[in-house]
Amino acid sequence: MRKVYSLQIQYPEQTREFDSRLTKTGRRSLSHSISHSSTDSNSSGGSDAENPEEEVSPRDMQQMNSKGSRDFCIKNIKLADFGRREIELAEDEMTALMALRKAAQGEKPLAGAKIVGCTHVTAQTAVLFETLVVLGAQCRWAACNIYSTQDEVAAALAEQAFPVFAWKGESEDDFWWCIDRCVNVEGWEPNMILDDGGDMTHWIYKKYPHLFKKVKGIVEESITGIHRLHHLSKAGKLCVPAINVNDSVTKQKFDNLYCCRESILDSLKKTADIMFGGKQVVVCGYGEVGKGCSAALKAMGSVVYVTEIDPICALQACMDGFRLTKLGDVVRQVDMVITCTGNKNVVVREHMDLMKNGCVVCNMGRSNTEIDVSSLRTPELVWQHVRAQVDHIIWPDGRRIVLLAEGRVLNLSSSTVPIYVLSITATTQALALIELFNAPEGRYKQDVYLLPKKLDEYVASLHLHTFDAHLTELTDEQAKYMGLSKNGPFKPSYYR
Amino acid sequence: MRKVYSLQIQYPEQTREFDSRLTKTGRRSLSHSISHSSTDSNSSGGSDAENPEEEVSPRDMQQMNSKGSRDFCIKNIKLADFGRREIELAEDEMTALMALRKAAQGEKPLAGAKIVGCTHVTAQTAVLFETLVVLGAQCRWAACNIYSTQDEVAAALAEQAFPVFAWKGESEDDFWWCIDRCVNVEGWEPNMILDDGGDMTHWIYKKYPHLFKKVKGIVEESITGIHRLHHLSKAGKLCVPAINVNDSVTKQKFDNLYCCRESILDSLKKTADIMFGGKQVVVCGYGEVGKGCSAALKAMGSVVYVTEIDPICALQACMDGFRLTKLGDVVRQVDMVITCTGNKNVVVREHMDLMKNGCVVCNMGRSNTEIDVSSLRTPELVWQHVRAQVDHIIWPDGRRIVLLAEGRVLNLSSSTVPIYVLSITATTQALALIELFNAPEGRYKQDVYLLPKKLDEYVASLHLHTFDAHLTELTDEQAKYMGLSKNGPFKPSYYR
Amino acid sequence: MRKVYSLQIQYPEQTREFDSRLTKTGRRSLSHSISHSSTDSNSSGGSDAENPEEEVSPRDMQQMNSKGSRDFCIKNIKLADFGRREIELAEDEMTALMALRKAAQGEKPLAGAKIVGCTHVTAQTAVLFETLVVLGAQCRWAACNIYSTQDEVAAALAEQAFPVFAWKGESEDDFWWCIDRCVNVEGWEPNMILDDGGDMTHWIYKKYPHLFKKVKGIVEESITGIHRLHHLSKAGKLCVPAINVNDSVTKQKFDNLYCCRESILDSLKKTADIMFGGKQVVVCGYGEVGKGCSAALKAMGSVVYVTEIDPICALQACMDGFRLTKLGDVVRQVDMVITCTGNKNVVVREHMDLMKNGCVVCNMGRSNTEIDVSSLRTPELVWQHVRAQVDHIIWPDGRRIVLLAEGRVLNLSSSTVPIYVLSITATTQALALIELFNAPEGRYKQDVYLLPKKLDEYVASLHLHTFDAHLTELTDEQAKYMGLSKNGPFKPSYYR
Amino acid sequence: MRKVYSLQIQYPEQTREFDSRLTKTGRRSLSHSISHSSTDSNSSGGSDAENPEEEVSPRDMQQMNSKGSRDFCIKNIKLADFGRREIELAEDEMTALMALRKAAQGEKPLAGAKIVGCTHVTAQTAVLFETLVVLGAQCRWAACNIYSTQDEVAAALAEQAFPVFAWKGESEDDFWWCIDRCVNVEGWEPNMILDDGGDMTHWIYKKYPHLFKKVKGIVEESITGIHRLHHLSKAGKLCVPAINVNDSVTKQKFDNLYCCRESILDSLKKTADIMFGGKQVVVCGYGEVGKGCSAALKAMGSVVYVTEIDPICALQACMDGFRLTKLGDVVRQVDMVITCTGNKNVVVREHMDLMKNGCVVCNMGRSNTEIDVSSLRTPELVWQHVRAQVDHIIWPDGRRIVLLAEGRVLNLSSSTVPIYVLSITATTQALALIELFNAPEGRYKQDVYLLPKKLDEYVASLHLHTFDAHLTELTDEQAKYMGLSKNGPFKPSYYR
Repeated sequence: MRKVYSLQIQYPEQTREFDSRLTKTGRRSLSHSISHSSTDSNSSGGSDAENPEEEVSPRDMQQMNSKGSRDFCIKNIKLADFGRREIELAEDEMTALMALRKAAQGEKPLAGAKIVGCTHVTAQTAVLFETLVVLGAQCRWAACNIYSTQDEVAAALAEQAFPVFAWKGESEDDFWWCIDRCVNVEGWEPNMILDDGGDMTHWIYKKYPHLFKKVKGIVEESITGIHRLHHLSKAGKLCVPAINVNDSVTKQKFDNLYCCRESILDSLKKTADIMFGGKQVVVCGYGEVGKGCSAALKAMGSVVYVTEIDPICALQACMDGFRLTKLGDVVRQVDMVITCTGNKNVVVREHMDLMKNGCVVCNMGRSNTEIDVSSLRTPELVWQHVRAQVDHIIWPDGRRIVLLAEGRVLNLSSSTVPIYVLSITATTQALALIELFNAPEGRYKQDVYLLPKKLDEYVASLHLHTFDAHLTELTDEQAKYMGLSKNGPFKPSYYR
Repeated sequence: MRKVYSLQIQYPEQTREFDSRLTKTGRRSLSHSISHSSTDSNSSGGSDAENPEEEVSPRDMQQMNSKGSRDFCIKNIKLADFGRREIELAEDEMTALMALRKAAQGEKPLAGAKIVGCTHVTAQTAVLFETLVVLGAQCRWAACNIYSTQDEVAAALAEQAFPVFAWKGESEDDFWWCIDRCVNVEGWEPNMILDDGGDMTHWIYKKYPHLFKKVKGIVEESITGIHRLHHLSKAGKLCVPAINVNDSVTKQKFDNLYCCRESILDSLKKTADIMFGGKQVVVCGYGEVGKGCSAALKAMGSVVYVTEIDPICALQACMDGFRLTKLGDVVRQVDMVITCTGNKNVVVREHMDLMKNGCVVCNMGRSNTEIDVSSLRTPELVWQHVRAQVDHIIWPDGRRIVLLAEGRVLNLSSSTVPIYVLSITATTQALALIELFNAPEGRYKQDVYLLPKKLDEYVASLHLHTFDAHLTELTDEQAKYMGLSKNGPFKPSYYR
Repeated sequence: MRKVYSLQIQYPEQTREFDSRLTKTGRRSLSHSISHSSTDSNSSGGSDAENPEEEVSPRDMQQMNSKGSRDFCIKNIKLADFGRREIELAEDEMTALMALRKAAQGEKPLAGAKIVGCTHVTAQTAVLFETLVVLGAQCRWAACNIYSTQDEVAAALAEQAFPVFAWKGESEDDFWWCIDRCVNVEGWEPNMILDDGGDMTHWIYKKYPHLFKKVKGIVEESITGIHRLHHLSKAGKLCVPAINVNDSVTKQKFDNLYCCRESILDSLKKTADIMFGGKQVVVCGYGEVGKGCSAALKAMGSVVYVTEIDPICALQACMDGFRLTKLGDVVRQVDMVITCTGNKNVVVREHMDLMKNGCVVCNMGRSNTEIDVSSLRTPELVWQHVRAQVDHIIWPDGRRIVLLAEGRVLNLSSSTVPIYVLSITATTQALALIELFNAPEGRYKQDVYLLPKKLDEYVASLHLHTFDAHLTELTDEQAKYMGLSKNGPFKPSYYR
Repeated sequence: MRKVYSLQIQYPEQTREFDSRLTKTGRRSLSHSISHSSTDSNSSGGSDAENPEEEVSPRDMQQMNSKGSRDFCIKNIKLADFGRREIELAEDEMTALMALRKAAQGEKPLAGAKIVGCTHVTAQTAVLFETLVVLGAQCRWAACNIYSTQDEVAAALAEQAFPVFAWKGESEDDFWWCIDRCVNVEGWEPNMILDDGGDMTHWIYKKYPHLFKKVKGIVEESITGIHRLHHLSKAGKLCVPAINVNDSVTKQKFDNLYCCRESILDSLKKTADIMFGGKQVVVCGYGEVGKGCSAALKAMGSVVYVTEIDPICALQACMDGFRLTKLGDVVRQVDMVITCTGNKNVVVREHMDLMKNGCVVCNMGRSNTEIDVSSLRTPELVWQHVRAQVDHIIWPDGRRIVLLAEGRVLNLSSSTVPIYVLSITATTQALALIELFNAPEGRYKQDVYLLPKKLDEYVASLHLHTFDAHLTELTDEQAKYMGLSKNGPFKPSYYR
């Protein structure tokens, strides 16, 4: 039940973009496992989930919370108590957001903000939305994914009179209907957009473009959504500022280096159940993801080879103690091939024809293009589905390779997103909303911005508490000597 | 489906020993996951498994293999083809045994051996037993665990006229009946015992003690079984030599250091789903298991503290870069407590009363005594079962600790045994049988022996191939200079 | 003999800048040890070196090389053979420059270039200058440091009719005279400047500003020189483009992360002779230098604490497994304090008053300001000079701290610069000269530029050969997919 | 001045043994660098050292300490104050011995002991001898090496009326005369021997065998001395018990694993000045020394290959992430070859003929036999002595290899012994003396013993203080459960 489902909707002009959703961004759709298990036990308890054909659509139900409000559309309001417990557990873990609530509560920096949100609806994002409310905002919220909603969490929000429109198992029509219900309400003119995938933004552009006059900005988290915003921007059609929260330094480091360092091991254990010690592995690409994977496997006693196209990254691989090689030169001898390039056709049929029996092939990069899986769908090769995420591809001579997740991003398929990453993302989103809402006229143009360095640093600082970590403060004298403000930013904006 | 089941049989005089079965030894009962999944898919296909009450006992069935033999008792002979595929996959992985077949096939070192075996019945052990046959032995085989038999593997053996008596879900009575069927057959006098847990040995002692006149030796793998043999030996009742294969250097290093280095990460991810980076952890005990756990967590970016009672191990912890501390001194600040001591009451209620909210507590040591779990079963604490292997214990103030596997050995409960360890065990068993069967009169007395150093080295050498590793051979001159034989042993017997 | 001497010249208006020369840049003044030892044995052979007062100044000598040329001024032309051997040894090590000679020799990209150089005069820089000549340039060369010249290398160049003006032990007057002799020659109008410290540039600005009309650009390596250029640029006085080769990605990574990872260990062993295992260390600052130092000490078994002011770097320290703390919180318990901040007064008297007996204090940062050494020069403290680079400061209670290099940058004082770093610097300088000389009109304005990403990558690629490292080349299809040229640059210019 | 000098005395029957002194044991002759530098500055001050031919032998001098005693023979009593400072500095570092003084002072466990000692005479050993006196012993002391005496330390002891007979630069005749003066004194019958190399024991056997009636035991530290004792024992001539302090677990771990982990880096930097990052290295032998070297180089970013003859060690190398290979298979490509086998002719001419230009060859093993250096002394190869410990061997084609320390043990030649190892050795010696002196009749026979496990553990525990390390104590219940005494020993005697 840890799979990330892609949006299965097909409509002509956007097929490509929806395909590309199965990207790293997708990871955020995984709610933390505690919540998940609860969901599971819950849904397995409900017979509805088991017999979808008999189900009454939430759109056809008449539900009301205990305060008499009907401004929501969810699966089952009765799940509210259970969902509230989920949210409370998540609050324990989202310490940065809770600290932000405390720090900014007095000044209500979002007073007057009317936010329409379209993200996954989980216990963690619920903590985010309730934080926005604490900080003064009004919100309406739909799901960005038809499968990822935790119904009990939605119920808990609805019970608190939070207008939420989302359930697990929406149809395509439901999906857009829910989004519309966030925007198109009498007496409500949203002035901020919190988006994850660009669908809310797309919908407003398409249906209610006039609303953009009031909108102060868009905060977008997914690569796909950012891609769409840049597209708009290039075409001169972006009419409000947007902040790209995906590429903040803090988020990037965690998403790529630190998470992959752990999830490569986790994912390989869960799928191929391989012992790492003594194994020969080739890691294709030595960016942050490749660095994380290589370091983890080296630490576990694997012999790691690295391939690279960029001489600077290549030199780093050398200095970190990895043999830099071409894939073709080691592919016969290695026990695993891991792609982390973001490129296409990095592992092709010619390579796979040379692999030794039992070689594991998987992808930790950004898309499902790195391994040319289609080249394996030929008559002479036998595919044997061994278990979830694992296929054996058998050559006529009996030799088999072990293909994981059919070449899709492995840790999206088989690992959970650490709560820490969810927390960084949510905190960044909150700060980006505050920044855009309060920015003086002229600070932001109609363009796509990175999170200002100072806010990026603030997100990081809110997360240090978990580690019982204590920052040193500059003295006045030191700040002057360095030409820095005592509160940062401490590095130039390009610093990574 | 990765749980290790302990034998649930209760009979007065052996309760304690059967309890202690949930030890590290138990890990071998886990078959490798590939086989496992197949088993699962298979059994879920069969309606028998689902409706146990309707099931006909194998003892009441009349089955015959394609060659007309009926000398076996298993669940379903029709599963033979499927089981054969499992065995063939396992052969691919048990390269050391396959190499041994080739190396020793000509000389048939087990010609004349009549072996009764009582071990888990899985694809991997099937490769062992078929190897024994290739080397000249006759065998009869029962399961050492009432739940661990892979029925399709048993079928494949039966189809090859291998006398096997085992099925998944035996009753206690079935269990001893199967063992008896291995021993008590007309015209069959076993002269070797391959045991795992000591039940076969126990049965023969109890029922057919006269057989020991012909028995050349016992090969025992489990800690429990070895404990029983030492008990017999001390009481002067051991009447044949026995080899303890559990404590071979090769097996020990893999079981403890190398496996735990990987399984601590794997187990924690699967259960607590914790991010390791930046977490503070205290590892209690710095033996091989503690060394493996500490090294792995340090490599993943945790801050690791170590506790020890032995100053020599303590000094090693210091030199390896760990702060040596008492548990009480850091228990308030750490995010995880991992016991690896083999001792009892290492973590007690007083410690747990001080832990911070969310602290994870688990045991990687040898028994379920290290954490005083019973002290948590008091009225003021609430237990919340979150998912398999995970309980939250909630204090009156709302603080919760996360207890894994109820204090039992974590990686036995939540991780698989690497095939590599199964291979080392099986190869060691085969060599120990050959050694005892062929040893000249007088080499072994009626005592419990460790595997001779030279054979231990041979087991290691058979496993180097997997890593494409090439040993250097001593020249004559070098061997003379070192006072060594060119074929080993290369170290004194006490060398670890 | 590994000390870096600062320029001892005092003249009012530039005191500050000359002081700051004892910076990381200074490291390049250390010639590689092979050359050094040779120098030593050579100079100890010559009586001149021993009796400086009797020495005849090179300016007063009449020397001629074997071809009859007198256009040079050096210590002793007879040392030429010996110097040539030094240069040949250096050529073996400067493989990137030798590869560049081969790659670019045909096209003579520096044909027409008239370069005046002012750098250290060592075997390694000689390989650079002779490379420039091979690529078509004419050069005249003076030393940028009055102590660092290898006289035998200067002789070897002079013997090849290379106009070099440099000797070990120049006076201030000699220093400027030598520079002048590079510029002020009849029939010679330099059109490129290769500078290290900014003195050549300064001299031309002051004395021959008209020459700038012909000058195509300046290549500057030192932090001091770059600082001066930026100063000129801000003041609108920079009248030609300049390339800052100090801040190339490749050079920075090597200078800071990779070198410091090794030199922290080397320097501590050479000075304090400390055992690292089990020691508690606090590293102040977690930039590249701090990362290198922390990683190395952790690998050697030290327990490392980190202090930071920047939350993003702080979070990285946490994820890398270091306790983030304030200096004051651990200063009582640590065995070593290492500063890597680039800031001032990071370790002050209050800290040192609390340190335990034997605590080692040293600086790996950018200047000599990080440790407030002046606060230790008070009557109640006794300074005991134990050996080169090591002072014991003794408190009235007998407690002593071990101060290394009097708080100056430790590895500049006690470690050699790896040849690899010298090679990267020299190759970068050569490519920057080629770039500026051949750049089409308008590509560079009158400003200070970083090395273009593509050249940075080229420098890296020229150094991969040493590691027998093989780059992967993009296929056409892949390059298109990524939107990259097959020859790079592969990353945006801000990528680090 | 960090060289270890071997005893240059030649006498027929012992040549071999004296040769073998240049073994790891020799390292203890290196006094800690602080003392060393002091010595140096001191001796360079005295003109005697500079003009040995004019020197008056200490044997011909009439010296008296301030208390009127003349029972000593040293270089110069006037150096006493200076030497006392050295000893006091050493006391700061020998915390374990100082703790032992405190712990055992009351009971005077050596009251009645009359110890003749023959070890290096340095500040550290002085702390040992003064500890013995504090614990009740009377001592007389000679040097075990004609070059290693610190004259100022000897003076400080003499000033305290400690009978010491040692100076730097003894002749062979002096050497034995000094030893004789320890033994052959009226009214003095030694009952304990503390030896380092076996010369004191040898002398007593040869000249005063009757003394052995009173001798309670011998404590010997060097491999050579232990070899001699075993020789005596086998020949049935050993007439008192002896304890081998060299092979205590604590000492071995430090001498081999922990020291070599640091000294391989230190030694290579000091000699070859190589950068480790990205270099390919082959480490021959994966015992403790090989493990230390491999781990350190891997941590510094080298790519490490390992060769082994023992499959168990080989498998460990694999699991630790090293490619196991034969030397011949990688010798063409590596940048360094390091021997750690204890064997002979591990690197032979055939290997060296294949090495690439600049390959560094060195030995960290136990003797000077591992590299066949003699095979390089052929006419076609040119030896070029580059600096201390470094020779270039140049092949006719210009290719050169870099041979360190002429194949002798590298870290003995170029690194200092950490004070920590000296402290462990001295503490072990003291405890061994106490044990033998107080052992009840019959505990020890006329044989060579290892240090009892419990004392080995005690040595370790005395050293934990330095690391601020806190041992956990067993509860009564735990001790009973484990079948252990609360005070240890905690492991079986064979545990390493």
